[in-house]
Amino acid sequence: MVEFSDTDMAGIMHFSRFFTFMEATEHAFYRSLGMSVDMEKTDKSLGVGWPRVKAECEYKRPLRFEETVEIHLLVREIRNRSVSYQFIFSKLDGSQTVEVARGRLTVVCVAKDKETNQMKAVVIPPDIRGKLEVAPPELLTNED
Amino acid sequence: MVEFSDTDMAGIMHFSRFFTFMEATEHAFYRSLGMSVDMEKTDKSLGVGWPRVKAECEYKRPLRFEETVEIHLLVREIRNRSVSYQFIFSKLDGSQTVEVARGRLTVVCVAKDKETNQMKAVVIPPDIRGKLEVAPPELLTNED
Amino acid sequence: MVEFSDTDMAGIMHFSRFFTFMEATEHAFYRSLGMSVDMEKTDKSLGVGWPRVKAECEYKRPLRFEETVEIHLLVREIRNRSVSYQFIFSKLDGSQTVEVARGRLTVVCVAKDKETNQMKAVVIPPDIRGKLEVAPPELLTNED
Amino acid sequence: MVEFSDTDMAGIMHFSRFFTFMEATEHAFYRSLGMSVDMEKTDKSLGVGWPRVKAECEYKRPLRFEETVEIHLLVREIRNRSVSYQFIFSKLDGSQTVEVARGRLTVVCVAKDKETNQMKAVVIPPDIRGKLEVAPPELLTNED
Repeated sequence: MVEFSDTDMAGIMHFSRFFTFMEATEHAFYRSLGMSVDMEKTDKSLGVGWPRVKAECEYKRPLRFEETVEIHLLVREIRNRSVSYQFIFSKLDGSQTVEVARGRLTVVCVAKDKETNQMKAVVIPPDIRGKLEVAPPELLTNED
Repeated sequence: MVEFSDTDMAGIMHFSRFFTFMEATEHAFYRSLGMSVDMEKTDKSLGVGWPRVKAECEYKRPLRFEETVEIHLLVREIRNRSVSYQFIFSKLDGSQTVEVARGRLTVVCVAKDKETNQMKAVVIPPDIRGKLEVAPPELLTNED
Repeated sequence: MVEFSDTDMAGIMHFSRFFTFMEATEHAFYRSLGMSVDMEKTDKSLGVGWPRVKAECEYKRPLRFEETVEIHLLVREIRNRSVSYQFIFSKLDGSQTVEVARGRLTVVCVAKDKETNQMKAVVIPPDIRGKLEVAPPELLTNED
Repeated sequence: MVEFSDTDMAGIMHFSRFFTFMEATEHAFYRSLGMSVDMEKTDKSLGVGWPRVKAECEYKRPLRFEETVEIHLLVREIRNRSVSYQFIFSKLDGSQTVEVARGRLTVVCVAKDKETNQMKAVVIPPDIRGKLEVAPPELLTNED
């Protein structure tokens, strides 16, 4: 649901909030796979993080205060060290579901390098890779 | 649930986010009474708004990413033109519920003055006033 | 400067904040042309707004608390009803300026339709169009 | 300056943003004393942090998009392990400066306990304590 603090003086959800909604959906997706991006939850994190390398969003209709938005996450592409997600935002308009926005996040798999203690890009661990599957093309190609 | 974007570099929910959580709870409370603060929803708004005149929060424990927080709203005081709410934030710590924070918002009832077209404080309409009731003192006095 | 509230639990500026920084830069650009997006400032607004239709950002390096970021706005493309901006984020790393991120916003020119009272896309007014100029290609093509 | 993303659908700066403005002012105050809250800046941090235990704000006038706000920080009270700041927000209204809001933050001095590796409240180090001075009462008592 769009909260008051998500809106701006144009009376609609601020465009930057779509990115925090995408991220919340991404994290819910990880939880649904039994994982967390919180590296301190050692039972769940598998020791990797997912910083963003690219984020984008196309806006089609405004979202207003107290409107309920549905967000579908689709895995677009899996590479050795990165994953690209697509997000489709929709809402009810009368009795019809209409698309509100369409976004993408490309995230890279990182882990702490034991020598330098710095984060660096790593191959996605097999335990995680095995849980990810690219969405069927017919879901991804629509309008894209 | 505490989202990643609610956190700061100290690894905990940023203190300003407690205020947006309070407001979201307040708005959910209005919805539970069949009202909305959105004045354009003429069927629900009764033509009044509730700008804040005072906001405060005491922080007792940190909230962390992916922790679930429960927020209880209590009506502290009802005056002619204003209402004061108390919010108690709690979370599960192991099998125990612990208090995380305690906040208050004082909001004033405003309506658009027909002559000046400006918002001004008004007596709370009886339709709304009739739906509000001060919480029992034993709920309010605890630690307060 | 990156404020504490711009950071997240990864210790860096949250990726969504780059979009609010882009927008603040865009609005400063309008002010530099004597305009405002605030339609109620009738002396400055020329009666048009600029909702976003697309926003994107590529992240190259993190921004940390108290780091100073320089943001360059370039006009990428001007169409009849829309403008596309490019933003280059950079910071000092020792004595060198390094690129931190690169973003784009595509905004559409809208005005209130007198009949329907709804916002709709309009041709950019000549007064505004005359103030905008596409950046030289050598500035835009670098890494892009 | 109030940015577009600071506003809400009521057309004014969201009440929670006053708290991030207070914190930014507090951090600028620390920088003016040669300190940073960033514990990793070991040359500046003195190894202590300042989590908030109480935050409050009274709102007197709205702040609007592109308005410039001036924020005065005053040290209200210094205790062994905590400091209380007062913030006075003002803006120009025509040729007059008017008070917009008045806030307070109470922050507690913490350091990492070497045994438990947890943050705990500590006496303010003399190096820092020596730089802090309570504001003259005539500045603090006005309307307070």
